[in-house]
Amino acid sequence: MDIAVLGTGMAGRTLSGALADLGHEVAVGTRDVEHLQQTNTDFAHWQQQHTAVRVLPFADAAAHGLLVFNVTAGAASLAALEQAGADNLAGKVLVDVGNPLDFSSGMPPALTVANTDSLGEQIQRALPETKVVKALNTVNAGVMVAPAKVAGGDHDLFVCGNDNAAKTFVTSSLQEWFGWQRFVDLGDISAARAMEMYLPLWLRLMNAVGTPMFSVKVVR
Amino acid sequence: MDIAVLGTGMAGRTLSGALADLGHEVAVGTRDVEHLQQTNTDFAHWQQQHTAVRVLPFADAAAHGLLVFNVTAGAASLAALEQAGADNLAGKVLVDVGNPLDFSSGMPPALTVANTDSLGEQIQRALPETKVVKALNTVNAGVMVAPAKVAGGDHDLFVCGNDNAAKTFVTSSLQEWFGWQRFVDLGDISAARAMEMYLPLWLRLMNAVGTPMFSVKVVR
Repeated sequence: MDIAVLGTGMAGRTLSGALADLGHEVAVGTRDVEHLQQTNTDFAHWQQQHTAVRVLPFADAAAHGLLVFNVTAGAASLAALEQAGADNLAGKVLVDVGNPLDFSSGMPPALTVANTDSLGEQIQRALPETKVVKALNTVNAGVMVAPAKVAGGDHDLFVCGNDNAAKTFVTSSLQEWFGWQRFVDLGDISAARAMEMYLPLWLRLMNAVGTPMFSVKVVR
Repeated sequence: MDIAVLGTGMAGRTLSGALADLGHEVAVGTRDVEHLQQTNTDFAHWQQQHTAVRVLPFADAAAHGLLVFNVTAGAASLAALEQAGADNLAGKVLVDVGNPLDFSSGMPPALTVANTDSLGEQIQRALPETKVVKALNTVNAGVMVAPAKVAGGDHDLFVCGNDNAAKTFVTSSLQEWFGWQRFVDLGDISAARAMEMYLPLWLRLMNAVGTPMFSVKVVR
């Protein structure tokens, strides 16, 4: 499938690399390709190992993808998606992996939007013709693409969004591609508040557990 | 042990009833005893079944308890604790079970405080001579006192607070009294932000799971 991964951080590299390894035609989107390649040695090194992944400006990557992942830093996601262009994203499924972390007051970060709104809702409002599905923001990049590395995959991925068919497409794809077994559909895109407000707990749990390679299982 | 349970809602009744059944000397604290008994038929009915539990004004209940639970509605907790009196709570361990839910804009509720502060921190600041331990706010009342009803008890209770000895006292007591097996210490009282910001996800999960009798297990 033609897939766009917007964002070049750890999560963007992990996700696009794993998708390319599965044979997908992946384009990574960034603000300024030349600047990225000349200044980000982590990315340059990664790119040498993933030559099949194209690196394009946000708009060209978005135009390429039939499925689009937003893995830009949450505080910069709206600007990145504006550059990607609503026309290039119209009619498509956008998986919003962003977390609106605010590091301006140090660690642990707060959220730039919370409680009565969320990044997922802001993105859906900014892109009314796009089917936004919030997913994968509640686990580390390494878990996103290899859920079996945690408890053999016996843990839950939360998803939400306004379009049921889009959610089913995303969960069935994550199952097929990465082996995700358990999903909890939390409802419409306003549940992005709940999924993003989980991040402070996720960060505390990472410290307590001693590794980002963990997840939670809902039990009853 | 002499225990005070501040709050007469479902969680307060469940907790104080379970503690009294274990043989503890429990006093339930409320703003106006007479008004409660004359207007709240749920409580009056419960009291007939739990005659060993005394019902006292907040201050008298707080003075009685060597251990104190705050299970008042989060939006009213600071006022309730002011009535309970800092002197009556000084030197004691206060388990803050409160969730600062804001129902003023309908369902699902937002939080009255979030992101850069929390109810747990507000309470600790208001009661500097009290050892505040945040716990039990992340599970339903029925799970609080009978964790084995969910997955045989194989799930996690999150705790935080500034005083390590107080946290150990609380977790060992919850283990002995109710059979809690697994705890995750999230750090100092500022982790109350994480524990309270989990509530929107808890509410979404309750809807998705179809019962409040659930919990989460941290897996790695």
